[in-house]
Amino acid sequence: MEMRRHNAAFCAPCFVHYTRQQVRKAIEDFEMFRPTDRVLVAVSGGKDSLGLWDLLLDLDYQVDGLYLGLGIGEYSSESREFARAFARRRDANLVEIDLPEAYGYDIPTGAVAARRAPCSACGLSKRHLFNKAAMDGGYDVVATGHNLDDEAAVLFGNVLRWNTEYLGRQLPVLPASPGFVRKVKPLVRLDEREMAAYCVVRGIDYIVEECPMADGNRHLGYKDSLNAVEERSPGSKQAFYFEFLAKASDLFRPLAIASQEGGLSSCVRCGSPTTGEVCAFCSLVERAVSLGPTRRRAAGDGAPVPDATAPDAPVPGATAPDAIAPDAMAPGAAAVAAGP
Amino acid sequence: MEMRRHNAAFCAPCFVHYTRQQVRKAIEDFEMFRPTDRVLVAVSGGKDSLGLWDLLLDLDYQVDGLYLGLGIGEYSSESREFARAFARRRDANLVEIDLPEAYGYDIPTGAVAARRAPCSACGLSKRHLFNKAAMDGGYDVVATGHNLDDEAAVLFGNVLRWNTEYLGRQLPVLPASPGFVRKVKPLVRLDEREMAAYCVVRGIDYIVEECPMADGNRHLGYKDSLNAVEERSPGSKQAFYFEFLAKASDLFRPLAIASQEGGLSSCVRCGSPTTGEVCAFCSLVERAVSLGPTRRRAAGDGAPVPDATAPDAPVPGATAPDAIAPDAMAPGAAAVAAGP
Repeated sequence: MEMRRHNAAFCAPCFVHYTRQQVRKAIEDFEMFRPTDRVLVAVSGGKDSLGLWDLLLDLDYQVDGLYLGLGIGEYSSESREFARAFARRRDANLVEIDLPEAYGYDIPTGAVAARRAPCSACGLSKRHLFNKAAMDGGYDVVATGHNLDDEAAVLFGNVLRWNTEYLGRQLPVLPASPGFVRKVKPLVRLDEREMAAYCVVRGIDYIVEECPMADGNRHLGYKDSLNAVEERSPGSKQAFYFEFLAKASDLFRPLAIASQEGGLSSCVRCGSPTTGEVCAFCSLVERAVSLGPTRRRAAGDGAPVPDATAPDAPVPGATAPDAIAPDAMAPGAAAVAAGP
Repeated sequence: MEMRRHNAAFCAPCFVHYTRQQVRKAIEDFEMFRPTDRVLVAVSGGKDSLGLWDLLLDLDYQVDGLYLGLGIGEYSSESREFARAFARRRDANLVEIDLPEAYGYDIPTGAVAARRAPCSACGLSKRHLFNKAAMDGGYDVVATGHNLDDEAAVLFGNVLRWNTEYLGRQLPVLPASPGFVRKVKPLVRLDEREMAAYCVVRGIDYIVEECPMADGNRHLGYKDSLNAVEERSPGSKQAFYFEFLAKASDLFRPLAIASQEGGLSSCVRCGSPTTGEVCAFCSLVERAVSLGPTRRRAAGDGAPVPDATAPDAPVPGATAPDAIAPDAMAPGAAAVAAGP
């Protein structure tokens, strides 16, 4: 495995060692979590999230997986199988939530209902449900498989428009705050190619296809642009992201904080922190359920119990999906944003 | 002429009107100069600088051209002819400085001597000599033909490495300071394609080739990357640059100022402000002259009189080309930097 940005090449065992070292370094440098913390890894069935789960297990952290069924046809059923197979093989605990079963909508319907791009509706749903699952399950932290390419592409998107609030929140660790568990990204020192190689070397089967709904999204275009720069000048992506953290991130932080000073209240439906009356997630669910054929079945049927306040009917005056900044995305998600 | 980023299309007369309006708006918005100011346009013979000169003449500013002969073979002799032809046609005043004649070196030699990339040696020479020519000629301001593509590419390069000092100085106007005249970039609202179209519509002949020494430089790669983004999302380049000015530039300004707080002294050779004993330009000249066959001829021979302190022999202990940030570049220059 040759790594031009490090001017190095490793055999398989050394490469696995290198990968673990990079994750260990990220966890320590950014004080992501300790061995006593309970970690919930958001698992999509792809190389990054399964690789991350594998790495954290081998580094002896207390870590469970969380799989969210998004109702995206075969893509969802296949990716779930990869997550389940990994959990079986490693004898690890996989928490599962199925969006259609538990909440009565799927991402394609939700996107139409909320008049959002699919990746936006998906990101919103994931952020809410990852956080809720972690809070409900008593986890200290949610870990996502965002790698260096993901973070650099998100950064590029935010820089292209100088989304200063998001720039102030794009960090590998988002501390816990009332109603939110800590979010961490332990793969920020590893790129896509390295994560794919790691899975190959470790014999981890993962879903190779990109999510079909993400086709043509901006995020992928930003990756292409950065890859072209990286090709001409290896190490550019890493410098772009880590120099941002070292030299610029702090400059934007006050703007991110100022943007939240309006204060958060609790969603009247689910109790989550929100800037409006009803949080963006509950608003999305409400619209999606009112639009599509309700596929929600009785709660308590293998799927986690939905919010006690899960919507049954449209409520006039509900706050539209609002300006709450995204606080976590699964890899491959499109929304160019970060931070709670 | 179709402009996707403005979602507009113009016939030839309206396009000329649009172009003038964009320049007028840039000059007014950024308070670049007034009708009473004497403006010196740095002219390379390319579309941007000749187009700018033409525009400023038509907007009734007091504007002369400055052509710097860089000694880059045929490229230099051809580009000079375009500059001279334009001046004749518009009955405008062209100041000429020939680097080999006046200072005894050319850019290819200078680059080798200073162990800099050619674009770096060239940028350094231009910045010094544009400024000196303006000071000597009693001009209030130097205007360069940097267009939106140039500025966006420089910004991209600085952002990729988070060169915070340069980011704090990348402005369309650099105010005068002791030893430096004001520098302005009136074409920041127009892109390359528009400037080429302007010259075609106005019948301005210009040198189409890129400088042969710039081949493969990073700056051109950054333009390609941004063009790919622009292609997918028209208006991205303009948003990237102008949102930077509106929302982020101020955040970096203190870092740029702090970096200069060491204070500037006067170069012992030429008197220019410098952080060392000998300014970067005099150091470059000294090395270049000591290396190459001296082609300098007696001063006062059509070419401007060289600095009284122009080097005749290497001086031990001269300060190496130092950390003075570039303050202006001709379009197409490579150095990813801005600010005085």
